[in-house]
Amino acid sequence: MDYQKILNTINDELSYRDVTGKVASYIPELAKVDPRKFGMHVYRGDRQHYSFGDSEELFSIQSISKVFSLSMAMRLMGEDLWDRVDVEPSGDPFNSLSQLEYESGVPRNPFINAGALVISDILVDQLEDPKQELLDFVRKITEDNSIDFDLQIAASERSTGYRNVALVNYMKALGNIKCEVEPIIDFYFHLCSLAMSCKQLSKAFMIFANKGKILGTEEEILTPTTVKRINSLMQTCGFYDEAGEFSFEVGLPGKSGVGGGIVAIHPDQYSVAVWSPILNEKGNSELGMKALERLTTLTGLSVF
Amino acid sequence: MDYQKILNTINDELSYRDVTGKVASYIPELAKVDPRKFGMHVYRGDRQHYSFGDSEELFSIQSISKVFSLSMAMRLMGEDLWDRVDVEPSGDPFNSLSQLEYESGVPRNPFINAGALVISDILVDQLEDPKQELLDFVRKITEDNSIDFDLQIAASERSTGYRNVALVNYMKALGNIKCEVEPIIDFYFHLCSLAMSCKQLSKAFMIFANKGKILGTEEEILTPTTVKRINSLMQTCGFYDEAGEFSFEVGLPGKSGVGGGIVAIHPDQYSVAVWSPILNEKGNSELGMKALERLTTLTGLSVF
Amino acid sequence: MDYQKILNTINDELSYRDVTGKVASYIPELAKVDPRKFGMHVYRGDRQHYSFGDSEELFSIQSISKVFSLSMAMRLMGEDLWDRVDVEPSGDPFNSLSQLEYESGVPRNPFINAGALVISDILVDQLEDPKQELLDFVRKITEDNSIDFDLQIAASERSTGYRNVALVNYMKALGNIKCEVEPIIDFYFHLCSLAMSCKQLSKAFMIFANKGKILGTEEEILTPTTVKRINSLMQTCGFYDEAGEFSFEVGLPGKSGVGGGIVAIHPDQYSVAVWSPILNEKGNSELGMKALERLTTLTGLSVF
Amino acid sequence: MDYQKILNTINDELSYRDVTGKVASYIPELAKVDPRKFGMHVYRGDRQHYSFGDSEELFSIQSISKVFSLSMAMRLMGEDLWDRVDVEPSGDPFNSLSQLEYESGVPRNPFINAGALVISDILVDQLEDPKQELLDFVRKITEDNSIDFDLQIAASERSTGYRNVALVNYMKALGNIKCEVEPIIDFYFHLCSLAMSCKQLSKAFMIFANKGKILGTEEEILTPTTVKRINSLMQTCGFYDEAGEFSFEVGLPGKSGVGGGIVAIHPDQYSVAVWSPILNEKGNSELGMKALERLTTLTGLSVF
Repeated sequence: MDYQKILNTINDELSYRDVTGKVASYIPELAKVDPRKFGMHVYRGDRQHYSFGDSEELFSIQSISKVFSLSMAMRLMGEDLWDRVDVEPSGDPFNSLSQLEYESGVPRNPFINAGALVISDILVDQLEDPKQELLDFVRKITEDNSIDFDLQIAASERSTGYRNVALVNYMKALGNIKCEVEPIIDFYFHLCSLAMSCKQLSKAFMIFANKGKILGTEEEILTPTTVKRINSLMQTCGFYDEAGEFSFEVGLPGKSGVGGGIVAIHPDQYSVAVWSPILNEKGNSELGMKALERLTTLTGLSVF
Repeated sequence: MDYQKILNTINDELSYRDVTGKVASYIPELAKVDPRKFGMHVYRGDRQHYSFGDSEELFSIQSISKVFSLSMAMRLMGEDLWDRVDVEPSGDPFNSLSQLEYESGVPRNPFINAGALVISDILVDQLEDPKQELLDFVRKITEDNSIDFDLQIAASERSTGYRNVALVNYMKALGNIKCEVEPIIDFYFHLCSLAMSCKQLSKAFMIFANKGKILGTEEEILTPTTVKRINSLMQTCGFYDEAGEFSFEVGLPGKSGVGGGIVAIHPDQYSVAVWSPILNEKGNSELGMKALERLTTLTGLSVF
Repeated sequence: MDYQKILNTINDELSYRDVTGKVASYIPELAKVDPRKFGMHVYRGDRQHYSFGDSEELFSIQSISKVFSLSMAMRLMGEDLWDRVDVEPSGDPFNSLSQLEYESGVPRNPFINAGALVISDILVDQLEDPKQELLDFVRKITEDNSIDFDLQIAASERSTGYRNVALVNYMKALGNIKCEVEPIIDFYFHLCSLAMSCKQLSKAFMIFANKGKILGTEEEILTPTTVKRINSLMQTCGFYDEAGEFSFEVGLPGKSGVGGGIVAIHPDQYSVAVWSPILNEKGNSELGMKALERLTTLTGLSVF
Repeated sequence: MDYQKILNTINDELSYRDVTGKVASYIPELAKVDPRKFGMHVYRGDRQHYSFGDSEELFSIQSISKVFSLSMAMRLMGEDLWDRVDVEPSGDPFNSLSQLEYESGVPRNPFINAGALVISDILVDQLEDPKQELLDFVRKITEDNSIDFDLQIAASERSTGYRNVALVNYMKALGNIKCEVEPIIDFYFHLCSLAMSCKQLSKAFMIFANKGKILGTEEEILTPTTVKRINSLMQTCGFYDEAGEFSFEVGLPGKSGVGGGIVAIHPDQYSVAVWSPILNEKGNSELGMKALERLTTLTGLSVF
């Protein structure tokens, strides 16, 4: 199958002019992004690359990075992690405090904000220099040492992120946070500020399409079981309260971020990243969702 | 791969003695079932059958039948159906009224009770004789005219099913129920009372592993898109609030019932049904979950 | 103090033209009421009567009648009643199912719908002919045998009251309803359909301002403790989720209904009823609230 | 009526040995209090004092002080205050975040923690030196300059008060907090740490029984309308989720604290404070509730 032709078709068919959502505006840095940006990159199991548009431009990957921190926490704790965070989809919006209130401080899954904050607590607790080790991890699996935080984004989120500070304090009151609040919040906002391109993201996520190994060197980063768990979580919980819709439209495990990025993987086949900053009302990239739907339709490859 | 050998291994490894859950007891008819029952049946894409144990004994399939009524409703309404019921996982237990209260009477998905009751309303509204047409549908896709309701089960559920009557009345108050309450409830309790064996279930669910066609005759019952939608829903919502766990452990779209049955499908590969009436605390067959986990591990076939 | 002069002042000051709410419309019979209706009646401890406007016209007292059924249930069960229904204000709107879900089917107080339905269950369970005995009770304390149900209202509520049917079924599922659903609902909708005038209501409620005795005959209908309990409940829970506002504005125990009636009592001083069918957004008579506020201000008598 | 005789009777009848609750233990300083402590003080409208037991011993008044901060905020803002906090009873426990989630950050009333934190925000925003001005206010109405914070209590609450920090951050995210988090929290924990005796409390609360004036000097501290509002709030919301029970048992406006203190007032008659550190399961002083119930029964004075 000619993937480049398929990507060209997608690029021809879809345009930011046809979508009606809005760029994220809760911090000024995100609101400034050009809404016309649109890029896509496929990294295939045979190490071929295919792309179009702004696929090499850096953007704020936001919640996509929660897959990286989860991977690191699973390497440290394995399945013991699930005493601190559950693995079930959340029926509530992504930052609900009510769910915590009724479930004793245990977040529904590691991709809602509360869950990602518990994961951050674990990394801050167990690592010497968690921010550096996060960078090391992402750089290693991407094989690209240029990846870094966007410190302006991190600072901006810090200055307005009262809801996340509330979540950490609340879970600490409920006994599910070990460290002090400040370093957890600092780590979390840096985590969300990672700047990457579609090309870099598709390389990084190839480990989830390649049973945990870096494609090429075949160095094992995660065990096959860990990869299965994370893929399963991306399938059921990767899209806020639009997981069901994404599962149907695209049919692949994936993760989105409010910066407008989405990554998805087809086991043994490919890893794909797409970026368009215009979000639908559920907070997922509107054009990105369409692009991935077209990809699985045109390749005939979904998990269903 | 020798599927019969794999099933034999599963049968050898697993026993009702090793599980600690309880048989469903909310109606006397279910509580009477012998907890030692255990059977499994695989129907493969090459029309081969493999099985062990009580795989041909009839049991109450309960919520598994919600996949049948959903299929019928999608044939009648297509994607318009989703104005009346959502497609997202529910973070709440399977019979929550609170979720309805906050979301204007639109159930989160067609597999929670509220959603299945809306589906029942649609069938009662649009079909001349919905109970007979349900039987006709199930008999057709199973190619077995002996399949029938268990009227004792239906009557028993009717006499204690106040919560479901509450749900219908509540959604009618909120404007999401068209018909009178009584015929909906009558249809719903008959639906849940269908008695089938593992063998019959695996035959019936083969349409979901075969792009909507009856294997052999290749008669199209559902469009490929409808099948993709239903498989996606089974993947994200098929197991009450244990969907995430099942997705990881088994990695296949599936549906469980409190009678202890579970069905799952691997697209293009096989359809499988397992039955053991002992339930874990989330209401899913404890031994059935383990058996399916062993199956995907031993065959190396999950969607992740 | 010249109460008639005070009432005249209130009548002069207030007009339906100055309020902005709407007449209840959930059943056609209530929507038909003339919004210009306005009447008030004070029955004083010295057996004097004062009134203005439409004070002798019958209207649908709706939830005000819950005080009558509660009184009857307390005569039958005393403080044992509080095992089945709580005595605390409800933070939720008056017909919330969520609260029941989290509190095991025990309604927060006897004036929210769920609570009044539990009270109805008790009366249906313990009385031979509950509807007749209710009429007997109200006629006796009002000393007026003409009081009756409005059967058109009762039938209309019955035909649209799905939410109340849902509540009864749900509480039955949770174990807090003894009788069959139908007779409870039938009693409840008759209860809400009682037609009374301001004059009749002020006479009936005099027992709560007179330590449980009929003023004049001094026959004891309720013990002083029961009266204290009911007055306390009217103070904290008598106005849906506007109890706090009424407590401040008026400072008297009282009860409102969506028919636009409000009754209130000042212990040892008087009983008062007011009627204007235009409701504010919380479902209480907008003009009635103002009239009572003026009454306590002009008489200088509130409990605070 | 001989109030001293009535107090002696109460002292004779009641003992810490007859109650089954527990001393508050969420901070070590409160847990250390001797559970046998028991004192009561009545300050009558004719300026007579009556007391028994440990009525002059200082204890941590905790939430009782929320009445002081509310009084100060009402002096600054009058009824405009109610744009920021509601006046209705809360059906939820005293520190619920869910309620805020559904009601856009506006707390149900100024006595739940969230409401008291909004009040604290107002004082921190509008006053030069809020902690000193609080002390000045309390000292003035008590006519006692010895009243002070217990700094050990304040520090201890600060070090464990994650839930309150969560509340402030959450309301700031929802737009209902103006100042920085830290000074609000600092003020709030000092507020809760005020140490007063029953005698001092009954003097301080006399302004609520004397139409807003200091008894004796008749200096007006609060307008009669403000006093009516605060008394009404104490009546409907002063006892966490036991407001209804207190309203019935005691029938007076009042306020409790987890230090085991309760104050109540009878307009124009008296102000009363009682202290016993053993709490019932709702967090109110078990012996204190009984003592006040006996007082209103023996004096025959409740508002109902």
